[in-house]
Amino acid sequence: MGRPKQERAVHTRELLVDAAAGVFDENGFAGASINKILSRAGVTAGAMYFHFRSKADLARAVIHEQSSRLAIPEKPGGIQQLIDLTMYLTGQFTCNVRFRAGVRLAVEQGESGLHDYTAYRWWIKTFERELVAARERDELLPGVQESSFARFVVASYTGTQVMSDIATARADLPEQVVAMWRYLLPSVVPPVSLTSYVIDPARKDLITV
Amino acid sequence: MGRPKQERAVHTRELLVDAAAGVFDENGFAGASINKILSRAGVTAGAMYFHFRSKADLARAVIHEQSSRLAIPEKPGGIQQLIDLTMYLTGQFTCNVRFRAGVRLAVEQGESGLHDYTAYRWWIKTFERELVAARERDELLPGVQESSFARFVVASYTGTQVMSDIATARADLPEQVVAMWRYLLPSVVPPVSLTSYVIDPARKDLITV
Repeated sequence: MGRPKQERAVHTRELLVDAAAGVFDENGFAGASINKILSRAGVTAGAMYFHFRSKADLARAVIHEQSSRLAIPEKPGGIQQLIDLTMYLTGQFTCNVRFRAGVRLAVEQGESGLHDYTAYRWWIKTFERELVAARERDELLPGVQESSFARFVVASYTGTQVMSDIATARADLPEQVVAMWRYLLPSVVPPVSLTSYVIDPARKDLITV
Repeated sequence: MGRPKQERAVHTRELLVDAAAGVFDENGFAGASINKILSRAGVTAGAMYFHFRSKADLARAVIHEQSSRLAIPEKPGGIQQLIDLTMYLTGQFTCNVRFRAGVRLAVEQGESGLHDYTAYRWWIKTFERELVAARERDELLPGVQESSFARFVVASYTGTQVMSDIATARADLPEQVVAMWRYLLPSVVPPVSLTSYVIDPARKDLITV
């Protein structure tokens, strides 16, 4: 007995998003073709057009679903968990194709012409939850605005990641994210608490759902 | 009497880099063609191949020469001048095609496959000169490393600019760069001097060579 129709459709869609992520990751947006994606997914054109109208549509799905294979903590934990989360993301660039391709497509939107801010908005909200928890725990200085600081963490992480990719194929990303936090933390937490936070790439392994 | 041969060659090269910047700005790397660039420059293919072997070569020139039409202060001036310089760059995105196209190509290198860090290195050095001047003027906290902080300013400006471009076609870039400095300054200057710096997009007009 086959799987119910709806379950098969969900499965096909997942196959397509993963195949698209792989092909965009290896070839970029312009270099990717629908045929390459179909052959990698093992899906017919007809089945694809049920879910996606175009290559741009597939790219949008990879951008929007870049976080769907990540372990994002359900319970926000404040500043330390936000630091650890950025370390976890740094590690994911090496092994999580959906995340890597989604981030790259989200950055290189001049090339695809997508103008899609959804993924950035999602990351700002995700980081903001940690900062709201930080505020409740009295971890933040009075003047810090949770949403604007969340936006700036996303922006500085984005720029750090782009430069590390070009300079070292992201080999130095862990140390650059450490440097990022050394320059961000003093502006947002009280001086007395500064040394209580651990800025360590190895803490990526502490992130679980 | 015509211009000397060498002067003509320099002129042709400048025409080509400007035409390439315009075509990359409007069409992206993949969408740009050598024919479009030649017709905009009013230059023959033969004259182009004397200077550039390929579209990638032209893109590299636009990346490397993104700052050649900018007014970069000859004399470094410290923290205030670094803030003003970032405000000046923010204004240049609207009017300086070579800068805008060069920055975009430098960011979207996954698409072009260039892996060229030259422009980032140049900006780090340019910002570092201001920070070395800042150190000489006793403007920096003891723990701040000029080169690593210069790198982080370039990274956070890059991410801020990418996100502002996607979210608002850079309409909110001035206010986002103000927010950037509100989160950067407290980490690098002594608390007593914090209010002596002016973070104001209008100061872009103070930058001259």
